[in-house]
Amino acid sequence: MSATTPNPASAPDEVTLVDTVITGATVLTHTTRPAPAYPELPREDVEARGTATFLDDHAIGTRGGVIAWVVPTASVPASVLDAAARIDAHGLVAIPGLMNGHTHSPMTMFRGSAEDVPTNEWFNKHIWPMEVNLTDRDVYLGAQLAIGEMLLGGVTSFADHYFATDQIARAVEESGARALLASTFFSSQGPAGVESSAAFAERWNGAAGGRIRTAMGPHATYTVDDADLELTAAHARRLGIRTHIHAAENMQQTESSLAKRGVTPIQVLHDTGVLEAGAIIAHGTGIVESDLEWLVPYADRVGVASCSKVYMKHAHTTTPVRMLHDAGVTVGLGTDGPASNNTLDVLESLRILSLKQKDAHLDATWLTSQHALDIATRQSAAVFGQEASLGALLPGYTADIVLIDPSAPHMQPMHDLAAALVLSVRASDVRTVLVDGEVVVRDGRLTRLDLGEAIAELNARIPELTDRSRGSIQDYAP
Amino acid sequence: MSATTPNPASAPDEVTLVDTVITGATVLTHTTRPAPAYPELPREDVEARGTATFLDDHAIGTRGGVIAWVVPTASVPASVLDAAARIDAHGLVAIPGLMNGHTHSPMTMFRGSAEDVPTNEWFNKHIWPMEVNLTDRDVYLGAQLAIGEMLLGGVTSFADHYFATDQIARAVEESGARALLASTFFSSQGPAGVESSAAFAERWNGAAGGRIRTAMGPHATYTVDDADLELTAAHARRLGIRTHIHAAENMQQTESSLAKRGVTPIQVLHDTGVLEAGAIIAHGTGIVESDLEWLVPYADRVGVASCSKVYMKHAHTTTPVRMLHDAGVTVGLGTDGPASNNTLDVLESLRILSLKQKDAHLDATWLTSQHALDIATRQSAAVFGQEASLGALLPGYTADIVLIDPSAPHMQPMHDLAAALVLSVRASDVRTVLVDGEVVVRDGRLTRLDLGEAIAELNARIPELTDRSRGSIQDYAP
Repeated sequence: MSATTPNPASAPDEVTLVDTVITGATVLTHTTRPAPAYPELPREDVEARGTATFLDDHAIGTRGGVIAWVVPTASVPASVLDAAARIDAHGLVAIPGLMNGHTHSPMTMFRGSAEDVPTNEWFNKHIWPMEVNLTDRDVYLGAQLAIGEMLLGGVTSFADHYFATDQIARAVEESGARALLASTFFSSQGPAGVESSAAFAERWNGAAGGRIRTAMGPHATYTVDDADLELTAAHARRLGIRTHIHAAENMQQTESSLAKRGVTPIQVLHDTGVLEAGAIIAHGTGIVESDLEWLVPYADRVGVASCSKVYMKHAHTTTPVRMLHDAGVTVGLGTDGPASNNTLDVLESLRILSLKQKDAHLDATWLTSQHALDIATRQSAAVFGQEASLGALLPGYTADIVLIDPSAPHMQPMHDLAAALVLSVRASDVRTVLVDGEVVVRDGRLTRLDLGEAIAELNARIPELTDRSRGSIQDYAP
Repeated sequence: MSATTPNPASAPDEVTLVDTVITGATVLTHTTRPAPAYPELPREDVEARGTATFLDDHAIGTRGGVIAWVVPTASVPASVLDAAARIDAHGLVAIPGLMNGHTHSPMTMFRGSAEDVPTNEWFNKHIWPMEVNLTDRDVYLGAQLAIGEMLLGGVTSFADHYFATDQIARAVEESGARALLASTFFSSQGPAGVESSAAFAERWNGAAGGRIRTAMGPHATYTVDDADLELTAAHARRLGIRTHIHAAENMQQTESSLAKRGVTPIQVLHDTGVLEAGAIIAHGTGIVESDLEWLVPYADRVGVASCSKVYMKHAHTTTPVRMLHDAGVTVGLGTDGPASNNTLDVLESLRILSLKQKDAHLDATWLTSQHALDIATRQSAAVFGQEASLGALLPGYTADIVLIDPSAPHMQPMHDLAAALVLSVRASDVRTVLVDGEVVVRDGRLTRLDLGEAIAELNARIPELTDRSRGSIQDYAP
């Protein structure tokens, strides 16, 4: 799609027969091209990034899990309506399924268990000693609870990074959600670490009818050595997948890396071939200007997942979104794990990123709500490497669709829908969610999952899970 | 109550006959003394501030709008239960009604109408030109919508600052909510300004069965001159009320005041007698260390209402909560008006204050969730000057009670209820709200208000309301 092609959503598409028609929605769309060609975009398109607009009273037809057309509701023939399942979205806003670019979903089980502590204590006194206690079933139930929370909040896809990932994959498969799963490893595990992460990635990539995709999962540049990162990149190239890794999580890690070995964490990813093979960089709050030299050449395959709430809570400076934006590097949203973020609410991540960016630069004009919505949709999809199929409500894109009800008092009256979706909306305003064209949340209720058992069992497990006396995964000393 | 008195909630109260019994709740209480005697507290009590704790499976009895007792559910005799209206709160958490210490409630009508602009443009290009268009009915409907949004989010009381306040008072009276109303004036109005603010305060103080109380409403130290502030203080003393005023809204205002007249905005409040008479200082992000000299002597009657989300959005530095805390000055929560804050969600204000404090000091250990809950309850009540009757669930306190449902996936499993109420809860988790012992929200629905007409009419008014061509209230030039 070139910059001069008319927006397909407003072109006179053929209104073909479909499985499902959503009628009467206000549909979020974009007036500039999507992210894939971003590094080659002319400057004016970069400047124009984030021009979310809305189409009133439109209908979306989906067939075989894919969006077939987006047209004015009045232009849908009765014959097409009669042959399809109908979802009445009059008064609702349709947005692309939200994407969580970095989380550790099973850590719902530790939500609220390590509060008001600095990062080193969070790891060494709480999380790593508690993670010794995990069973496969804990991971399965924790992931199931997380997926339920995310779907209810309009999050259709998440990039996960954890242990016992076969359990997570099973929970994803059953739930109807979409995920990009990475099996975490450390070099302290020896050669088995990277190999088992690669074996998981190979085993599950494309599973659940394509809803599951995988990434390599090295933990971080301070816990995985360069030889293992080179092996990681080789596996990623072989499998055609990305690497999802914590890097430059905070400025102290960058400073420590420079002091110990004279290179930044981002240069380590460059030098080991991880960036060239494609990567999701989690956090990146310690990315410095000189890192642009390593990031920009791979801007078409590398993105940063920013989890702004966690940086405030854990007292780190925030991701340099403005510097990355100006250099053409993609930034998407993440929540980090619920043990640090306390929720898996991507609408909250969106709001706090927006506010924190204005705050960080003391510039109220920076990062408009339109821009923020671009980060939440097309840029987040680009972080996943799935910008050709996710993050936009356009013909040919996958039918991951969220219907939001803007009628509650806290969003009324309606002057500015973009501002409302960034600064007023609540996850509880999500009414209906489709993944691959299937309704997974209807009128605020999960259609496939019953979370009662997971919640009861995880609460009963708290005494065992929080026993910090049985050793630790390892020591946090980046 | 001295520091060594046992907590009344766990003392063997007499379980007398009451109007209403809430059974089975987890009740938020506090283990240190409440705020009134704060300036005289021994140092160790100041350090211990914010020790919110929870009583499991307790019952709250209310009689004549006042809490009669808080005891274990099992200790309530059947005869007492049978004689009372019952609210089953099994599995719910009871907290004191939330208090919004600074807002401009009717500005719901401008929610989202002035986005991504610096403060001077926000006033001069948007808000003050639009406010020329207001009718009394706009103010009434805007306030009604605001009150509905607040009650649904557990906000039982709000300190308002606006024009056409008779309309706001009428909306409060009808809604069942509680408010502290101030009629805004500028010295540009001449002597009529301060007099009409005082007349309003006198007319409505104690109305609606005591649910309405009033304050004097000078706009700010840069729009109201010293003579009018001295008159304000005289009226406040005469009426036994506080003054609610914008002061040191940002550091630039403090610097400008120092440059123009050699004193800070806070010293102006001191020198004109406003502090001595008692004051709610809105924002105070420009309070500097030397201002403590003026604030500390009146710490028993002066509080700062902090609206942390707005400071991030409008790119101001934040309220110096830590400095004020260490000096013994009370800080409560506010939202500011919905034209700048985009919501009237005090739980959101609580969360963002908590996060922004850690962020501002790059200290993850500062301002724990327990401390944040103290700010949301007892300190906010002290900002209103109502710490003897509001902000605590204790016998003798007014029955403003909020029941929150913590069972949704985003709060489970439950390791830490204080953290969950600060970092995971959503306003949509509020189930039932009582003001003066009357149920004003039941199972998430307003019992007295129907907002449909207000929402429809304000949306229809948008073209007229947003006409910026008819002049302006005045020029923002602090």
